Amino acid sequence: MDKRILIFDTTLRDGSQTEGMTFSVGDKKEIISRLDALGVDFIEGGMPQSNPTDHNLFDSVRMPEHAALVAFGSTCRPGIPASEDMGMRTLSECSAEWISIFGKSWRFHVDNVLRITPEENLRMIYDSIRFLTDKGKRVIFDAEHYFDGYKDDPGYASEVIKTAEKAGAEWITLCDTNGGSLPSEVGRIVSAAADIVSCGIGIHCHNDSDLAVACTLSAVENGAGMVQGTINGLGERCGNANLCSVIPDLTLKMGYEVNADVTMLTSVSRAVAEIANMTHDSSMPYVGSKAFTHKGGMHIDALLKNPHTYEHITPESVGNHRNYLISEQTGKAGVVKKLTELGIDADDRHVRSVLERIKDLESKGYQFEGADASLELLIRRECGGLTSPFMIPAFRIYIDEIDNGSIKSEASIKVADEFGNLEHTASDGDGPVDALNNALKKALTKFFPDVGEIRLTDYKVRVLDEKAATAAPVRVMIRTTDGVEQWSTVGVSTNVIEASLIALVDSMEYMLLKKTWRGT
Amino acid sequence: MDKRILIFDTTLRDGSQTEGMTFSVGDKKEIISRLDALGVDFIEGGMPQSNPTDHNLFDSVRMPEHAALVAFGSTCRPGIPASEDMGMRTLSECSAEWISIFGKSWRFHVDNVLRITPEENLRMIYDSIRFLTDKGKRVIFDAEHYFDGYKDDPGYASEVIKTAEKAGAEWITLCDTNGGSLPSEVGRIVSAAADIVSCGIGIHCHNDSDLAVACTLSAVENGAGMVQGTINGLGERCGNANLCSVIPDLTLKMGYEVNADVTMLTSVSRAVAEIANMTHDSSMPYVGSKAFTHKGGMHIDALLKNPHTYEHITPESVGNHRNYLISEQTGKAGVVKKLTELGIDADDRHVRSVLERIKDLESKGYQFEGADASLELLIRRECGGLTSPFMIPAFRIYIDEIDNGSIKSEASIKVADEFGNLEHTASDGDGPVDALNNALKKALTKFFPDVGEIRLTDYKVRVLDEKAATAAPVRVMIRTTDGVEQWSTVGVSTNVIEASLIALVDSMEYMLLKKTWRGT
Repeated sequence: MDKRILIFDTTLRDGSQTEGMTFSVGDKKEIISRLDALGVDFIEGGMPQSNPTDHNLFDSVRMPEHAALVAFGSTCRPGIPASEDMGMRTLSECSAEWISIFGKSWRFHVDNVLRITPEENLRMIYDSIRFLTDKGKRVIFDAEHYFDGYKDDPGYASEVIKTAEKAGAEWITLCDTNGGSLPSEVGRIVSAAADIVSCGIGIHCHNDSDLAVACTLSAVENGAGMVQGTINGLGERCGNANLCSVIPDLTLKMGYEVNADVTMLTSVSRAVAEIANMTHDSSMPYVGSKAFTHKGGMHIDALLKNPHTYEHITPESVGNHRNYLISEQTGKAGVVKKLTELGIDADDRHVRSVLERIKDLESKGYQFEGADASLELLIRRECGGLTSPFMIPAFRIYIDEIDNGSIKSEASIKVADEFGNLEHTASDGDGPVDALNNALKKALTKFFPDVGEIRLTDYKVRVLDEKAATAAPVRVMIRTTDGVEQWSTVGVSTNVIEASLIALVDSMEYMLLKKTWRGT
Repeated sequence: MDKRILIFDTTLRDGSQTEGMTFSVGDKKEIISRLDALGVDFIEGGMPQSNPTDHNLFDSVRMPEHAALVAFGSTCRPGIPASEDMGMRTLSECSAEWISIFGKSWRFHVDNVLRITPEENLRMIYDSIRFLTDKGKRVIFDAEHYFDGYKDDPGYASEVIKTAEKAGAEWITLCDTNGGSLPSEVGRIVSAAADIVSCGIGIHCHNDSDLAVACTLSAVENGAGMVQGTINGLGERCGNANLCSVIPDLTLKMGYEVNADVTMLTSVSRAVAEIANMTHDSSMPYVGSKAFTHKGGMHIDALLKNPHTYEHITPESVGNHRNYLISEQTGKAGVVKKLTELGIDADDRHVRSVLERIKDLESKGYQFEGADASLELLIRRECGGLTSPFMIPAFRIYIDEIDNGSIKSEASIKVADEFGNLEHTASDGDGPVDALNNALKKALTKFFPDVGEIRLTDYKVRVLDEKAATAAPVRVMIRTTDGVEQWSTVGVSTNVIEASLIALVDSMEYMLLKKTWRGT
């Protein structure tokens, strides 16, 4: 048996069906580059047939280096030859070499939803696949509801996948669309399918029975050579099979090989959550922040004797790390490592004071994982020798609803350089934070003309304790570029303006100081 | 084969190991009464040996009606007879009839953590169980790390459970303590255990490989007669097997019988999250609020024809319900359905204008999926007959950094009722949005005293085009309660203050108008 399993990521297509989630073209490109670096085989980008955002994506995306970018769509419509179907033509003309099209394999759906004859359904599948392969596309056929279909009418379900293979599909993905199947059923039905067709078999599971990962593994044990899933198990209802669990289960537990760097999983998982602006689920297997967190003296004692006592794998093997909840030791090695990276010669007292400061700020809602520049500033402040190049003695923001109903934001600000020279200025903006940013940049340019070059590229707001509603602390994360380098900063406050200002000030300080540190 | 499986809930013991969670005695009593109403067989209440809260619980709890309350503890210590061990005495004297005690079954732990001889470990297990049964207790033995232990040294692991049975344990629970086992391994090892002992076999799985539910089901298929787990999968690291998934999988999918009212699962799940003060995970299988939520016109069309098309079970069978999300993709059928639900008699023109308005607002960044109240207001506005009960002719916000470096936010506002009466007032707040909310509520209370009852329970901010940084549009979602009902509203603007105001105004309008619509 071939032990290599292909990884098909559908975060951007089926994952984007998650309630309350939308990806912009920019978000999708960012995720594609992360997935490509991870090394997966297929990245399903979206539905150019029906979604204008996805149409733009396929028009403008730079093709990934390792992965094949896949466009998803449906077969031609009933009664219409594929060559005359607009959707088919859109698919055949899009930039993707690989096309994934779905069709019905459950008689119940053919009869009750499409309301066409079983023969017409087979015709649509054959015709659509053939049309695409004739145009030079490579086709993956998604057999929707295959498991329900097979349990209902094995003869017809088998006919569907035989038809797809005959039409030229290179892979047939069996979908548990409603997420209701058990691992044993999935294993049995995949095994039967492997006897029916000789092309590759993929598996696509949903988590409605809390069994998506188990069903996926069961399919692989019974002959599937490709697994579909999403990062963090994103997807409508209860989500899709979580690739962050499937990949390490396959490789670290079952001895399969995949084209994915398992040690990158934790960082990819967190990046996707960040881009989707969703809270990263701390209890997620393998990649959650609690997955290797230990509390209770007895467990910790045992772990210090040998981590294998209470850990099923090493956290490093998935790019995660171990936490001891009550131990101060935890972060020490990490801080020492960071100081060495920054070339700072620090003693034990400094390491302790950095750790204490981080601990204190984290308890207030700060997070330095995604805020490299704020972390560097914090370290340099604690280790001494950092003088801030400017101060803000005062600022004021005015927000008025003016006559025509539009709302105007204006900020006035006083900025002093380290010699006490003062600049007092003001600016409008699209909202109070934008006004403040404009006014701050305007004032600083007086002392530091280089500030004119910088540009914010990202601005995120997260409400930390949603239950405290409008009085809750918020965390603002800002990403800035000077055209050469990018850096991220963070600020926390119950006041979104103050949180933004903290992050803005860190960003500008970092920009002004990094030249001294790096000698550039 | 007996098709009845006993349910052993350990939410209050292993579940309470969840990072960041503590249950008071009151919380535990509340959860015990919910679990008892659900009908489970065993409720593990806690560890009277080591935890003062749990000691109080067993002293003061009223015994559940259906369930057996179980006390948990460890065996006696090395070198000490059970009868002279303080912990054993505490267990033997506590009010619970059933005692669950754990012991080591993995040689690796015996050698490296306990650092005792394998024989002394067997002596501790035998002696402890015998001591408790002699005192009239009924004993469940938890074989810690049984699967790792069996894979490592099947002879010794088998010896451990044989010893427990000989000492008088009525049940032996095989624990996958580190959560690293695969369903196939669990099945094989449970089946082997069933050949070794003739007492009942229980299963206790952790979710570190995202397989806790699947491993639990596999154990049942191979001879386990009792399943351990927690409500909502609470538990340390990645949690324990989620009983809210295990129970319906066993009963609705696999034909087993359990002593639990499956239709109560959703409400028990939500109540436990509420008592634990945790957000209820909306994507949880069976019991999550998204588990039967459908979006996309095609799916909704099919569901309206027959729900079986896209649902693996009926939502009512687990006490949950179906939701249709209204979005641009939904199409006409969804809107018509929503209008019917709201009891609005509307013609085709109205349906079209509602759809167009939704489309227009969604293109600006609105999203109505999570904003039921804003959607209802939109529909009623489009279908005519909605007069807003108040207007905001003007407002102003001041944000100042004052001398001591703290930032002060103040809002002044003018609010008019529908007869033109004006209230002009002002308020401070934790940040500008809080100030605005306070001022608006203060002004409205003048006309509508009921507004005083409402409270925001959730406030979310999403930056829509993060790449546009501080000038990007933001979407604010607000959740409000009047103590009886909860509703959600949405606002979008490049100005976070304006977006918040739109959502706040919708929320208060909804509160004032819903009484008219519902006649309450």
